[in-house]
Amino acid sequence: MYKTVRINPISPHPPRASVLVIYTGGTLGMVYENKGRQLVPFEFEHLIDRVPEVRRLDIEITFLTLPEPIDSSNMTPELWVTLGQIIFDQYFDYGSFVILHGTDTMAYTASALSFLLEGLNKPVILTGAQLPIGIARSDARENFLTALEIAAATNAQGYPIISEVCIYFNSLLLRGNRSKKKESSDFNAFQSENYPVLANAGVRIEYNFPYLAPYIQENKLFLHTRLFSQVTFLKIFPGITPEVVHSLFNISGLKGVVLETFGAGNAPTAAWFLEEIKQAIQRGLLIFNVSQCDGGRVTQGQYKTSTALAQLGVLSGTDCTAEAAITKMMFVLGQSDDPDLCRNLLVTPLRGEMSSTFE
Amino acid sequence: MYKTVRINPISPHPPRASVLVIYTGGTLGMVYENKGRQLVPFEFEHLIDRVPEVRRLDIEITFLTLPEPIDSSNMTPELWVTLGQIIFDQYFDYGSFVILHGTDTMAYTASALSFLLEGLNKPVILTGAQLPIGIARSDARENFLTALEIAAATNAQGYPIISEVCIYFNSLLLRGNRSKKKESSDFNAFQSENYPVLANAGVRIEYNFPYLAPYIQENKLFLHTRLFSQVTFLKIFPGITPEVVHSLFNISGLKGVVLETFGAGNAPTAAWFLEEIKQAIQRGLLIFNVSQCDGGRVTQGQYKTSTALAQLGVLSGTDCTAEAAITKMMFVLGQSDDPDLCRNLLVTPLRGEMSSTFE
Amino acid sequence: MYKTVRINPISPHPPRASVLVIYTGGTLGMVYENKGRQLVPFEFEHLIDRVPEVRRLDIEITFLTLPEPIDSSNMTPELWVTLGQIIFDQYFDYGSFVILHGTDTMAYTASALSFLLEGLNKPVILTGAQLPIGIARSDARENFLTALEIAAATNAQGYPIISEVCIYFNSLLLRGNRSKKKESSDFNAFQSENYPVLANAGVRIEYNFPYLAPYIQENKLFLHTRLFSQVTFLKIFPGITPEVVHSLFNISGLKGVVLETFGAGNAPTAAWFLEEIKQAIQRGLLIFNVSQCDGGRVTQGQYKTSTALAQLGVLSGTDCTAEAAITKMMFVLGQSDDPDLCRNLLVTPLRGEMSSTFE
Amino acid sequence: MYKTVRINPISPHPPRASVLVIYTGGTLGMVYENKGRQLVPFEFEHLIDRVPEVRRLDIEITFLTLPEPIDSSNMTPELWVTLGQIIFDQYFDYGSFVILHGTDTMAYTASALSFLLEGLNKPVILTGAQLPIGIARSDARENFLTALEIAAATNAQGYPIISEVCIYFNSLLLRGNRSKKKESSDFNAFQSENYPVLANAGVRIEYNFPYLAPYIQENKLFLHTRLFSQVTFLKIFPGITPEVVHSLFNISGLKGVVLETFGAGNAPTAAWFLEEIKQAIQRGLLIFNVSQCDGGRVTQGQYKTSTALAQLGVLSGTDCTAEAAITKMMFVLGQSDDPDLCRNLLVTPLRGEMSSTFE
Repeated sequence: MYKTVRINPISPHPPRASVLVIYTGGTLGMVYENKGRQLVPFEFEHLIDRVPEVRRLDIEITFLTLPEPIDSSNMTPELWVTLGQIIFDQYFDYGSFVILHGTDTMAYTASALSFLLEGLNKPVILTGAQLPIGIARSDARENFLTALEIAAATNAQGYPIISEVCIYFNSLLLRGNRSKKKESSDFNAFQSENYPVLANAGVRIEYNFPYLAPYIQENKLFLHTRLFSQVTFLKIFPGITPEVVHSLFNISGLKGVVLETFGAGNAPTAAWFLEEIKQAIQRGLLIFNVSQCDGGRVTQGQYKTSTALAQLGVLSGTDCTAEAAITKMMFVLGQSDDPDLCRNLLVTPLRGEMSSTFE
Repeated sequence: MYKTVRINPISPHPPRASVLVIYTGGTLGMVYENKGRQLVPFEFEHLIDRVPEVRRLDIEITFLTLPEPIDSSNMTPELWVTLGQIIFDQYFDYGSFVILHGTDTMAYTASALSFLLEGLNKPVILTGAQLPIGIARSDARENFLTALEIAAATNAQGYPIISEVCIYFNSLLLRGNRSKKKESSDFNAFQSENYPVLANAGVRIEYNFPYLAPYIQENKLFLHTRLFSQVTFLKIFPGITPEVVHSLFNISGLKGVVLETFGAGNAPTAAWFLEEIKQAIQRGLLIFNVSQCDGGRVTQGQYKTSTALAQLGVLSGTDCTAEAAITKMMFVLGQSDDPDLCRNLLVTPLRGEMSSTFE
Repeated sequence: MYKTVRINPISPHPPRASVLVIYTGGTLGMVYENKGRQLVPFEFEHLIDRVPEVRRLDIEITFLTLPEPIDSSNMTPELWVTLGQIIFDQYFDYGSFVILHGTDTMAYTASALSFLLEGLNKPVILTGAQLPIGIARSDARENFLTALEIAAATNAQGYPIISEVCIYFNSLLLRGNRSKKKESSDFNAFQSENYPVLANAGVRIEYNFPYLAPYIQENKLFLHTRLFSQVTFLKIFPGITPEVVHSLFNISGLKGVVLETFGAGNAPTAAWFLEEIKQAIQRGLLIFNVSQCDGGRVTQGQYKTSTALAQLGVLSGTDCTAEAAITKMMFVLGQSDDPDLCRNLLVTPLRGEMSSTFE
Repeated sequence: MYKTVRINPISPHPPRASVLVIYTGGTLGMVYENKGRQLVPFEFEHLIDRVPEVRRLDIEITFLTLPEPIDSSNMTPELWVTLGQIIFDQYFDYGSFVILHGTDTMAYTASALSFLLEGLNKPVILTGAQLPIGIARSDARENFLTALEIAAATNAQGYPIISEVCIYFNSLLLRGNRSKKKESSDFNAFQSENYPVLANAGVRIEYNFPYLAPYIQENKLFLHTRLFSQVTFLKIFPGITPEVVHSLFNISGLKGVVLETFGAGNAPTAAWFLEEIKQAIQRGLLIFNVSQCDGGRVTQGQYKTSTALAQLGVLSGTDCTAEAAITKMMFVLGQSDDPDLCRNLLVTPLRGEMSSTFE
């Protein structure tokens, strides 16, 4: 089903690690067509020609290419499940996993995979690039090689240092479901505003040990495969009209809304607005409150403007990113039809994606 | 109509500047009630008791309080016009204007005012605080006093250094319509990711002269008073459904959508998605493309995933913030019913709020 | 001997904490003289008039002023011992200590105190300001009030959160002997490049718990009182001459040199240079290698240019700041005349001031 | 005398630019020996094998290797003159110059070259790497390729965009004599704390045009070849003894001292210290005051502790780096024996290396 290629290191002794590299598409592996005016995905076999250094890493690498590499703007929940399935199926065959992914939706994918893969105790590292590996000046080589180094890293006991879904980009290793693409032009493209950086790659790769997800040897990987997509964002702004709010809350089949509020979780207290919220919640809509601010957290109840929301049953996303919130909503609604259970799961940190409301 | 209080400096010689301070509400002027558990706006007369230093600034300050101070989450386009009107009416009576505003929607208000006030050549500085001026530890005093200093600053010729709408917060002076609240907890709450900082206030206030809007002596202030509110955001994400997109584009009366895309302006190329876009534009809906990333810009046409949008008539917001984009949409739709004119205004930098597509 | 003033909080119930505030001088408490052209220290009694908010903190504050407040450029090792003695003498009378200090040598003082005060388990927080508390626009109030808040902070068990010598400045709490004044103009004046920030003060004060020195209840405070001052820096540069190096290494009475090297601890390998080093070490001079770079560490042995130094007996300061290195040198040489013991102490982390060479 | 190799681009049409690449040694071109435990310079011919992408740049590149590549810790003023001579001799043969240099003293070399090369109107870009080009994970390729891109960049009129000595490192282009190595471990190793970044290399290379040295077509390059090396640093610290200061000021033949002071140029006001300064200046020693802080500037006269220095004839280095200060001292003392002229040159910005005292 998938094309796979195995690359052996040039070193004579047995490789210290085996990594499955999954190529989904994205800038890293792109090439120009149309007389150099447009970028399209290219065949992954050529990629290795561009980074011959990969054979010096002393890692056995198996490349697996999705049947149809995609621009990450076309990523879908179905593909997330496919990626989860690939990792699940080959979990015992490899020491770790690197996913080459377009930067545009990488934070969404990393968040989704963190929910789908329960009980993970091996590294799953997503990386990509702002410029294609096929041109001279590019961040692709460095990102790819360092992601491989991190995927292969073990501690003195031989256990993986990383046992969670991460994004590696431009010297920074970030928790995947805490990440966000913050820059579309700079090489320094990702941030994790509400959780410390997990590692910094310079002359050495320096890990921030107290903040890594702990390795738990007895963990068993469980793959979730259901994501419910009838959800959306509602980003509020001064002047938002009753028509907009009403229409959005009443979209047929919609079960969840990630409400992007102001500051620490605040929204207008206009009677019509609160009434729309109230009715939506009464109809069973889940409303999950995250902030439009990259940093800080929703603290419903501090200001009058957020107390109202809390009283109506809006659920606090504390310091969750928008990307983690919408994928968590899809995941939770895929888990159960019981609204109480869903509400409970939403406000509970499941994979380190948010702080508890009590912290 | 408005309560006003005049504060004279303690210095014996004539003050070097006169500033109109407009208090709209917000954390800066808040106090705890309900046994200290909730913050509510308090009377501005008390504010000056908390910052007696204001009388040492050698500035004549006139305080004007809105009839009903509001939490900035309840800010509205009507109040933006009111603020514009106050400044317009008193433009010749004061050398500059400081607006005390809640942080939550300050970037929206600053953006909106920049569009409403055409031909400005005096400073309009918005500021606020993360903690109330009424408690011990607070950023309110420093923000307020420095905003006043900047508002009163003139060059060697006696002209104002600043002649645009700005936000001052935590040592940084930012162009208002380039600003964004990035942190809901830190004092360092605002950023201007796509335009340089205009000044840094430390021991001295250091201006970044090449990037300031130039002072144009012959400028005449013109006040725009129409904002059209039937607009909204559509933030795309992997898995977004046809139902969501279709319903949102068909909200009754809706004339404009700020499409929050991935990276450099990319969106899914699924046929149903492009068809929805195409039909919406054919019905006359304006679609303005800005990025979910804080930094960088929409470069429609570089990737297949953005070329499609450009071909359908989606308008590039280049490096515009979401806050400036939605208020510009309201402003432009308030200017004219001619869709071609509106489209043209949207893609044209009007107040330094975005780079041109040709830059 | 010292002037002391007690300030009681305005709250009716017993204060939650008692803090001894020691005023040494510095910009924070300065005032203009000479027709406003020069800053000189002023009487501390007036300071409290400038920060009436201090009485709202619910802390009992005792102010102690050094007999002669000084500009921190005039700080001396004798005064460090005096400060240590004050804290030692009153250790059981107060829950914590705040030292108001000029910014110029604050990092030196914080480093020195960390060595002098062994077995500390109460907070000693140094703070100051870039602008005097006596003028309108100033960082003094915020720094002072937050330092008090941090000094008074306890955990759920009632133990102090901080039990080490720290610098608080402009929202950041830093380990004192890891700090460095990096900016002479910005309010954001201090950094701790090689150790994480201990706390960030915004809407809440967020502690970085894994990196705090642990509270050890059974710790007994021991005061060291000897510092040996015949030490100096030698900052190398391309072109440095034999005359300079030779003269400096042969200064009469000199026992220690902090060698400020390039990058990861590198120096010229010219024969004359190594010979000077060799002879100096043979004569008993201690040479402690720290980098001219703010960040990173000395890794003697990686390059030929540092291996030579290691072989000659130059001691690695790993990631120690210049400020901590010179005060540690004074401290260690004050501890013993035994060169082997001194060498051993120098390369051993004593108060968290540096990483071990084995990390 | 020098080994040169010419690399032609693979493109069929004439190259758009010709660049002379001068390899001096440094990590970028290093390789492991001694069973992988030590890095030593390797032959530059092999370098191009590691970066085959260089041939895709459409630039004609001529490599010139110094007869004996050195670790940059062994850089000397003689080699600075040699580098200046190479550029001067081949100034009309190439459009621009890239110098591959170890990071340790790169900021010193860039500063020195800026003084030696008067009237430059072509780019001279220094770059290097934290990890060798010969290993898998490395910043060497990206730094090298982007430095070439910047060196070859021209504006619409065909003139070079850059016409000064710069350092390019890890996405940042910095003015050379404003740069400083700040990190010995991170890839993000250089900063220019007191002057804006000149360009940021991401998806595009974004130049900060208002802050670039202007291109002046009629400029004629003049090469200075004299540097006087009997100079040194004196970094003051609390506790510094009369013996240390006296001995250092009386080193035989010494003509200049870069005094590294506290904060905004402050030093102790102890009588003995000022007397040493006074006598040294009377003997003709030049004392140039720069701050130990990376950012901000010396403002002699603001505090009593700096006024004393100014009155004694200590010269203000305003916001000059230590690296630029010591090389400027060498340059100025090489220019003339007239102390008044030297003093005047020292306090005058010569190549944009410092702000004027009047700014």
